[in-house]
Amino acid sequence: MQKSYLMAPGPTPVPEQVALRMAAPAIHHRTPQFSRLFRETHEGLKYLLQTENDVLMLASSGSGAMEGAVVNAMSSSEKAIVINGGKFGERWGKICEAYGLEVLWLNYPWGAPADPAQVEELLLQHENVGAVFVQACDTASTVAHPVACLGKLVQKHPRTLLVVDGITAVGAADIAMDRDGIDMLLVGSQKALMLPPGLACVGVSTKAWEKISQSDMPRFYFDFQKERKALAKDTTAYTPAASLITGLHEVLAMIRQEGLAHLHKRTELLARAARAGLQALGLELLAPAAPAASCSGARLPESLDGKALVRYLRDTMGVTVAGGQDHLEGKIIRINHMGYVDSFDIVTALAALEMALHRFGQPVKLGQGVAAAQEILLERYPS
Amino acid sequence: MQKSYLMAPGPTPVPEQVALRMAAPAIHHRTPQFSRLFRETHEGLKYLLQTENDVLMLASSGSGAMEGAVVNAMSSSEKAIVINGGKFGERWGKICEAYGLEVLWLNYPWGAPADPAQVEELLLQHENVGAVFVQACDTASTVAHPVACLGKLVQKHPRTLLVVDGITAVGAADIAMDRDGIDMLLVGSQKALMLPPGLACVGVSTKAWEKISQSDMPRFYFDFQKERKALAKDTTAYTPAASLITGLHEVLAMIRQEGLAHLHKRTELLARAARAGLQALGLELLAPAAPAASCSGARLPESLDGKALVRYLRDTMGVTVAGGQDHLEGKIIRINHMGYVDSFDIVTALAALEMALHRFGQPVKLGQGVAAAQEILLERYPS
Amino acid sequence: MQKSYLMAPGPTPVPEQVALRMAAPAIHHRTPQFSRLFRETHEGLKYLLQTENDVLMLASSGSGAMEGAVVNAMSSSEKAIVINGGKFGERWGKICEAYGLEVLWLNYPWGAPADPAQVEELLLQHENVGAVFVQACDTASTVAHPVACLGKLVQKHPRTLLVVDGITAVGAADIAMDRDGIDMLLVGSQKALMLPPGLACVGVSTKAWEKISQSDMPRFYFDFQKERKALAKDTTAYTPAASLITGLHEVLAMIRQEGLAHLHKRTELLARAARAGLQALGLELLAPAAPAASCSGARLPESLDGKALVRYLRDTMGVTVAGGQDHLEGKIIRINHMGYVDSFDIVTALAALEMALHRFGQPVKLGQGVAAAQEILLERYPS
Amino acid sequence: MQKSYLMAPGPTPVPEQVALRMAAPAIHHRTPQFSRLFRETHEGLKYLLQTENDVLMLASSGSGAMEGAVVNAMSSSEKAIVINGGKFGERWGKICEAYGLEVLWLNYPWGAPADPAQVEELLLQHENVGAVFVQACDTASTVAHPVACLGKLVQKHPRTLLVVDGITAVGAADIAMDRDGIDMLLVGSQKALMLPPGLACVGVSTKAWEKISQSDMPRFYFDFQKERKALAKDTTAYTPAASLITGLHEVLAMIRQEGLAHLHKRTELLARAARAGLQALGLELLAPAAPAASCSGARLPESLDGKALVRYLRDTMGVTVAGGQDHLEGKIIRINHMGYVDSFDIVTALAALEMALHRFGQPVKLGQGVAAAQEILLERYPS
Repeated sequence: MQKSYLMAPGPTPVPEQVALRMAAPAIHHRTPQFSRLFRETHEGLKYLLQTENDVLMLASSGSGAMEGAVVNAMSSSEKAIVINGGKFGERWGKICEAYGLEVLWLNYPWGAPADPAQVEELLLQHENVGAVFVQACDTASTVAHPVACLGKLVQKHPRTLLVVDGITAVGAADIAMDRDGIDMLLVGSQKALMLPPGLACVGVSTKAWEKISQSDMPRFYFDFQKERKALAKDTTAYTPAASLITGLHEVLAMIRQEGLAHLHKRTELLARAARAGLQALGLELLAPAAPAASCSGARLPESLDGKALVRYLRDTMGVTVAGGQDHLEGKIIRINHMGYVDSFDIVTALAALEMALHRFGQPVKLGQGVAAAQEILLERYPS
Repeated sequence: MQKSYLMAPGPTPVPEQVALRMAAPAIHHRTPQFSRLFRETHEGLKYLLQTENDVLMLASSGSGAMEGAVVNAMSSSEKAIVINGGKFGERWGKICEAYGLEVLWLNYPWGAPADPAQVEELLLQHENVGAVFVQACDTASTVAHPVACLGKLVQKHPRTLLVVDGITAVGAADIAMDRDGIDMLLVGSQKALMLPPGLACVGVSTKAWEKISQSDMPRFYFDFQKERKALAKDTTAYTPAASLITGLHEVLAMIRQEGLAHLHKRTELLARAARAGLQALGLELLAPAAPAASCSGARLPESLDGKALVRYLRDTMGVTVAGGQDHLEGKIIRINHMGYVDSFDIVTALAALEMALHRFGQPVKLGQGVAAAQEILLERYPS
Repeated sequence: MQKSYLMAPGPTPVPEQVALRMAAPAIHHRTPQFSRLFRETHEGLKYLLQTENDVLMLASSGSGAMEGAVVNAMSSSEKAIVINGGKFGERWGKICEAYGLEVLWLNYPWGAPADPAQVEELLLQHENVGAVFVQACDTASTVAHPVACLGKLVQKHPRTLLVVDGITAVGAADIAMDRDGIDMLLVGSQKALMLPPGLACVGVSTKAWEKISQSDMPRFYFDFQKERKALAKDTTAYTPAASLITGLHEVLAMIRQEGLAHLHKRTELLARAARAGLQALGLELLAPAAPAASCSGARLPESLDGKALVRYLRDTMGVTVAGGQDHLEGKIIRINHMGYVDSFDIVTALAALEMALHRFGQPVKLGQGVAAAQEILLERYPS
Repeated sequence: MQKSYLMAPGPTPVPEQVALRMAAPAIHHRTPQFSRLFRETHEGLKYLLQTENDVLMLASSGSGAMEGAVVNAMSSSEKAIVINGGKFGERWGKICEAYGLEVLWLNYPWGAPADPAQVEELLLQHENVGAVFVQACDTASTVAHPVACLGKLVQKHPRTLLVVDGITAVGAADIAMDRDGIDMLLVGSQKALMLPPGLACVGVSTKAWEKISQSDMPRFYFDFQKERKALAKDTTAYTPAASLITGLHEVLAMIRQEGLAHLHKRTELLARAARAGLQALGLELLAPAAPAASCSGARLPESLDGKALVRYLRDTMGVTVAGGQDHLEGKIIRINHMGYVDSFDIVTALAALEMALHRFGQPVKLGQGVAAAQEILLERYPS
């Protein structure tokens, strides 16, 4: 027997009570009973996104919602500014190009946050920028982009939206749609929402609705206006991912009970502990300047076969963390601290990493990463 | 306390063992462990669709897969023949039009099956028909269209695909993709697959792949070629609906254990019993010429408030059936017999209907519909 | 695939929400968290038994609680009056004899209720009767004994207790411990409490506590005084059946929500419907004079192999009912209507029985039993 | 939100797959379907107890099985040797006395193993010793008694049985009923069997059956001969704890898959790691001479309020460990390593303990206990 510990930045562990809630017999999704649950879930989403805007619920994974954002926010003659500092930043651009849109790329090394000044410059250079697309956190590089700063900039441009992929950020970091000037804010079920994948949510601002009404892009399944009409009747345009919405209802109740402020503080504490542990093991952080609250990445020693290390942790030790993608494949390790995670999950990930590094011949002192994390985690437990 | 009985044609009841399987801790979807489950699920889908073709798994509800079929099967200069004999037939046309395609509509009264001769005529009249779009069963009208006949016709046209929405048919009726000459065959999780909604599968023929490679339609999330590449590596292009795929793995094991032939025979028996019961109550079938195996519809007496009847059955009696949509709203009742349904669910639906009709002042003889159904259900239980 | 329908008088179906509640991670049973749940469960039991007395929770099946009742209620020099009108009545006597007690047997044909006059006579004839042991309902014979009458009688005898096995009665029939003069009242988890077996509860009156304190019988695991001390501290003397107590907490919340009066009325309605259905099929009730609210029994035609019929119902049709025990083996059928059961479960049981009788060559008219039941079940659904 | 980590020596965590298995709809326990499951479970128990003997399954907690052992093994004229080195040793004697048996007490300080020479001496001094009662491990003192040595001794005495409470030992340590000369071996569900409490199993040797047949003790619910007869028909004498037996079936499949040798080795490794961690924190082991494989105990610094520490760990940190009982209350801490436990549970318990000790003003170096444990746990993960 070997126990499994899931510590990758999505999918994250589903709380037992949520998993069991979703296992209960379904309510038909076209009934007043489901409508009530749907309405309450919508209210909970507005609390989570800190917004008075509509928040749509789409039966798709996050990439589907990203496509939805593009084909609703943009018109065919507009240009898109895409902040690309990781695999998911790149995806924004690919979607735009698939739909024939001109992309103004702002590329950053993975791990470096976007520079708002460069965005401002582009906005001044180019007329007809339909939207700025960015990640609040790019999962692939564990960097947090300065979303609130971008919000301030973009708000000055009446024809330009700020579209934020908050899939690996909302529910971990303090991102407030209304306060921060975000026009579309995306959330995915399998991250801080502690659910299986297959549900994506998009908050849409008044400014965005105005633009959507003028958009000439082709769309059907991800037609936000049709969803908005359905939302007003407490339902969805097409068959909803009903079991995930039921789970989300439970998750949002848990989040409300904890309170957003506490949730953000707890996640930040776990993040600091994870980073302290990684650094105490002599590893260099992937995004030292702007590390995400949701997950931490660290570079592995050059001599190490990082893919083998991640495989060893998962298959021999039972601890699933993430490695790197694309050009970082085999070179980094990524650890989750959003969602259904607490102090001793961080301790577990670090203890396992120490032991695995030791097995891979690295001169690591057992307990050293753990101790550095414990030092910080103590803050969670007052005398 | 009141027990709930779910008898609508989607969502259908999820077997307890499947619901519990999905409640188990998740396997990360980017691991060899999940890949094995994914591969086995794919094999099971090929068994279910009776095909050697690839079967893609999309994180969306059925309408998303319909859009996917359109934007992959068609090119912008092509025309679409759409068989419209119900709400879902109409949806094929709406999607095509949303993407700027010219639609050749073949409209039928709800409940009437398509006439292959008319399709043939259109195919001869029009060059450049990219695809014929049809439902194997239109849930809204409970009619079964002659898919195999259409297959024979369309196969003669090398540039035309037969695209079949089998969402409310595959797993209920005997639809064999390869034998019947279907180029794209769609399945949805919440019908005969006995799962919650949020997963759609699409079988794609060699002829279809050839056409897809030449398609110039815009697409990203529903890019079948990208999915095909991922499928070859036992994964999906974007984050999969992992919990539903896990459930599907269990469902397909159940289906294999029963055997397709038995499954189709059992469903047909339940369908005949349901129809006999409805008719014994003096109700007229909605699709008498070509009734679906998956669900049965019957017209309610004109004098009756059908919406109130459906509400009474659900809210007062605990039995959820479906009413009518669009112009049939309040005029019909629809009962499910696909998926996790057995003899006594049909008995339950009919007994409840008898009692509700009685309460609504109809001159129904209690037990009469049940008896007619029992007569047929006896075949299921040999001496 | 074949669906299973559980219609035997124990174990009865566990509601999904209860089963899922018990599947959640356990709380350690020696913590304040569990103590709170335990205390609330105890309050719920007092509501269910309609008593101000202590209600003990024992980790055992009902027979263990019966032994507990005997070794606590009696002293070695006392005699026991045992009302034996079924398998479980007989068990009271066997337990007493195993512990060397003299038994005054009052035997009744299975299905006949006890005659209070005979009990009174015995009480007058014999000094030193420690207790009268009776079933509120004997599951084996589906008879209800006149517990309230016996309570009135026994109350006049200061040294005699009325010990009632309410395992197949409490939660189905209106049995009020305090009002009816019951000194020990036993409940079992797998009957009207809708739980798996393994938990038994015993209400104990003040009069009983007095007698227990003087009892000289050997006991350890079923030492009620030790349990009472533990109960005062919101716990049990030995490790409790914690998962079942957790489930009971949920069940009692469901029962409170429905309300006892409604629960009893609903069960009585289902009972009347079941009896009407059985009689409409030409079957003779097993306990016509005093039928139980919890389950109904009927004699099968002499010519019929009743064991084969029950087997056929279960293995071929998926409907589990109970046959007869001891001398009634193969001669009767018993159907449950307590616990998580509603109208259409009765319909299912009767429809299946009709079809099975037909298959066994009986001249039954399909739908006839169902119609008789429906007639009564209509009362549950007002216009 | 706070996650809970259960690390007390019973109840231990239930594996998710086992909890979900028990949540599935029940099979009636008097059917061939359940009999098959029961028979396979019995085979699995024989594998676990390493015996060819019958293993009875009782619906009770461990104390009920202890009473059962006493009233079946003994006759009223016989004496009992009771090895009392902890709370549960004492319980053997209390049960014997409750049934009027003469007890020859062999008392040991909590934590000290029994001395076989003293047992031998008593056996030579006294004729008519019916049985020697001992714990394989006394949970209260975390000591392992020399069961195999006692087996050798007792085997020489044809009228004396060795009765071993293996509740906190079987499934953790290598106890082989047949090899070690044990006549009755008790197991409880909520320890190494990873189940909720409420099921106890007792292996019974041929020598024991012979004695049982001559026993004159009163008994009914715990009548082993009646259970043996039922076991031969793949059932139990009284209603079984069916959900727990279903869970046990799953657990035994897991154990078989791992293999007993690996299971014992893994548990021993976790035990060594836990002890190394406790000692590295400067704590003195409770049973240094003969520590149990199942759980470890350590004395807390005299100055420390141990009850407050355990409460802090549980209520503030979410980590449930056990404190001391009776005269050790507030003075020790006990950590579990049997059942569904793996390396990082030990790490978690130790990391939490370090932090709690720090918060209670102890001069502990964070990470030190963890490091000592990691050093040993590395053995589990080969290069």
